Amino acid sequence: MRPNVLANLLLQPLAPLELRCQDRALMSGSGLARGLPEPPYYAVIFTSLRTPGDAGYGATAERMLELARAQDGFLGVESARGADGLGITVSYWKDEASIARWKAELEHARAQAEGRRRWYADYELRVARVERAYGKGRRG
Amino acid sequence: MRPNVLANLLLQPLAPLELRCQDRALMSGSGLARGLPEPPYYAVIFTSLRTPGDAGYGATAERMLELARAQDGFLGVESARGADGLGITVSYWKDEASIARWKAELEHARAQAEGRRRWYADYELRVARVERAYGKGRRG
Repeated sequence: MRPNVLANLLLQPLAPLELRCQDRALMSGSGLARGLPEPPYYAVIFTSLRTPGDAGYGATAERMLELARAQDGFLGVESARGADGLGITVSYWKDEASIARWKAELEHARAQAEGRRRWYADYELRVARVERAYGKGRRG
Repeated sequence: MRPNVLANLLLQPLAPLELRCQDRALMSGSGLARGLPEPPYYAVIFTSLRTPGDAGYGATAERMLELARAQDGFLGVESARGADGLGITVSYWKDEASIARWKAELEHARAQAEGRRRWYADYELRVARVERAYGKGRRG
């Protein structure tokens, strides 16, 4: 498994980065976050519109992944971007404290600033407490 | 503005349907949910993998929108599906009660069953309480 592919699997737990479809598909075959604990835990819902072009975005995304994987409390991530440019990334975290630490991490904070300045034409970020979860074969 | 286009804008507040990119782009130019109240409110995070083909999915999606728009407590929706087939739809609701009513709505319940049987190879659904929100120009 190529390191870059592995890196992209766990990408973008918070603004300003998202998974790239091709790499994620190679990795997981699904892209659904698996192995999360039972709720409660936290979700960071990041909805964005990219500016045109890469402008350093891809390389920063890979680096942010390395950092995120090392963060205490990181549980997983799901990400999609449609042909119209709208992207949604939902990252999952153990608690508010782990989200706060990741937001404040120095290199990540610089990437967030770059995202606001260059990579995102618009975005919304919401922090939410997951109360319950179910899936195919696990009815709610 | 064509009725079908208008219909798709507000589509899929809960499983099993999502916005179609082309229609959403025609409508809003962005796809970001706007005009939501200040938190707290609720998010339903629906992540899915579609089965191949339409199989009645599109028509049901339009009908579900009509129903959802009429639901008390529906606030908005954001949706994206990538080229790899992974889709994320986040719908926003005033409270848990409005989510429960929409989940139980008879025609919607039938569509959910059809989604489980035919339209989704896999999915995860999470209900979360949005604690805070910010965006470009509204820093958190």
